[in-house]
Amino acid sequence: MPDKAMRIARSHPPAAGARPVMLAIAGDSAAGKTTLTRGLVEAIGPERCTALCVDDYHRYDREQRLGLPFTPLSPDCNYIDIMEQHLQLLATGQPILKPVYDHATGQLARPEYVEPKQFVIVEGLLPLTSKLSRACFDVSVFLDPPEDIRRGWKIARDCAKRGYREEQVLAELDRREDDSAAYIRPQRRHADIVVRFSPIATRNDPPGTPLSAELLLRPTIRHPALTHVLSDEDHTTMHLKIIRDSDGTPVDCLHVHGHAEAEESRVLEKAIWADLADRREMPEGLGALPDGGRSEPLAITQLILLYHLVAALQG
Amino acid sequence: MPDKAMRIARSHPPAAGARPVMLAIAGDSAAGKTTLTRGLVEAIGPERCTALCVDDYHRYDREQRLGLPFTPLSPDCNYIDIMEQHLQLLATGQPILKPVYDHATGQLARPEYVEPKQFVIVEGLLPLTSKLSRACFDVSVFLDPPEDIRRGWKIARDCAKRGYREEQVLAELDRREDDSAAYIRPQRRHADIVVRFSPIATRNDPPGTPLSAELLLRPTIRHPALTHVLSDEDHTTMHLKIIRDSDGTPVDCLHVHGHAEAEESRVLEKAIWADLADRREMPEGLGALPDGGRSEPLAITQLILLYHLVAALQG
Repeated sequence: MPDKAMRIARSHPPAAGARPVMLAIAGDSAAGKTTLTRGLVEAIGPERCTALCVDDYHRYDREQRLGLPFTPLSPDCNYIDIMEQHLQLLATGQPILKPVYDHATGQLARPEYVEPKQFVIVEGLLPLTSKLSRACFDVSVFLDPPEDIRRGWKIARDCAKRGYREEQVLAELDRREDDSAAYIRPQRRHADIVVRFSPIATRNDPPGTPLSAELLLRPTIRHPALTHVLSDEDHTTMHLKIIRDSDGTPVDCLHVHGHAEAEESRVLEKAIWADLADRREMPEGLGALPDGGRSEPLAITQLILLYHLVAALQG
Repeated sequence: MPDKAMRIARSHPPAAGARPVMLAIAGDSAAGKTTLTRGLVEAIGPERCTALCVDDYHRYDREQRLGLPFTPLSPDCNYIDIMEQHLQLLATGQPILKPVYDHATGQLARPEYVEPKQFVIVEGLLPLTSKLSRACFDVSVFLDPPEDIRRGWKIARDCAKRGYREEQVLAELDRREDDSAAYIRPQRRHADIVVRFSPIATRNDPPGTPLSAELLLRPTIRHPALTHVLSDEDHTTMHLKIIRDSDGTPVDCLHVHGHAEAEESRVLEKAIWADLADRREMPEGLGALPDGGRSEPLAITQLILLYHLVAALQG
């Protein structure tokens, strides 16, 4: 089904199910997709939100991949057509039988029945890889941490949770580099929002300072009006300015420093939320880090995504 | 998607794939579905024909079913919504990732990528169970052998090929009887063609005589014109007459006796095939039985189904 047909199908949903709001969170391995998703599901409530990872559409299991020239990052290694189909089904309110890849055994296992709730958050390596897959989303995010930060996160996670040694993870990162460049990073230019958590290059913050967030807000969707709270030069920890992205296109860049104060961040949060037509209560408890800490930049990022989810629901 | 929407979608197929011709072969366990399907695939050629069984949409594996009150024949025991969805996808020329149930282990396994070719033959217990599933087919068949014949076939197969003892198979047949009556047999009235292979009740044919075939040809699709070859009373082994089905509706009943001569059957075969607008070569080698023998009634049955497949392709 071409892009246009998908858009027509979504605006005229079948009787089968109400049309959910669809959010994509794309990015490379260990870019922070699951942390971001988890916070959103907690804020929305799991009873209203379906979260799924689309990295299980493998054409081959681990053993079959041994003799093959590509990594799991390559679309050739995945049933992208089935992923597109499943995204279309979810976007039109229908259930799917999602394939399941078992990371422990490297085998494809019993598929899983997934029904779309009011909100569907789709995270993965390749959810924005094709025009058809992109047409299924109301809002799309690409997580774009600096490569050295991402490598550090991947080593920490894969050694702690998946039983690998550091040199194994580094070798795998090198092996995947070509496919990352060819297939993962090009999705960045298709995202409505690009999120980069990183230390500030020009500062020497002490270790343990939360990472800053740089959010590129592309004019492909309507973002909350923030100039009235951020035009003021008094803000030292939060900025909004128009910049040219690396491809020359204009984009709003929202910067929230890691050492932003909760009070200052609260002003911005209120401005974001106030822009919704339906003044529902602002979600609490945002910005929770996996280590138990709290990050203002993560809280602001989550709130902007929640803003877009609620705004899309309001139509 | 409602029935009507499915019909519209099929008559205006998306650019993604050409619309295949869809044939359903429904019937209870050991009713002869696989034998009939195999002959059709051989006649068409596997390069032009996708055959699949839709009995793998189990909601529970064998272990999970132990504590549950229904058999695998019950729609409640299956993801019928996903089966319907997959039939719709195939009918509109799109691939599916079909679930796979492993009869040896009783577990749900790695799903299988299935692409529709020019013809798609769908056999199974419940392909005609819902209005939506039925709307996906150009032609539908229900296999309706007398219950004692089917029980004999099931015992022979399950003991020889699936490692069960006769008393186990008989107990399973009894356990399934209520669900057979409730869910399998009601599909009979929705089929375009009802096929009954059986011995002739009023004759005492010697053992080894091939079974006769009784084909109910419902006026829900346009059947080949056969009255000109079968009106003649000389035919002793083949008859065509209008009868009332058990629900009182009129239907053409084609009877081919097991002892029909190949020459006589050839006249009928030519009449069936001559009715196609496109006079392509008549397929050879029909009527092959699992034991290596040949059956004229099976050959006629297969040819009528092939007629409908080619006619549907011609639109």
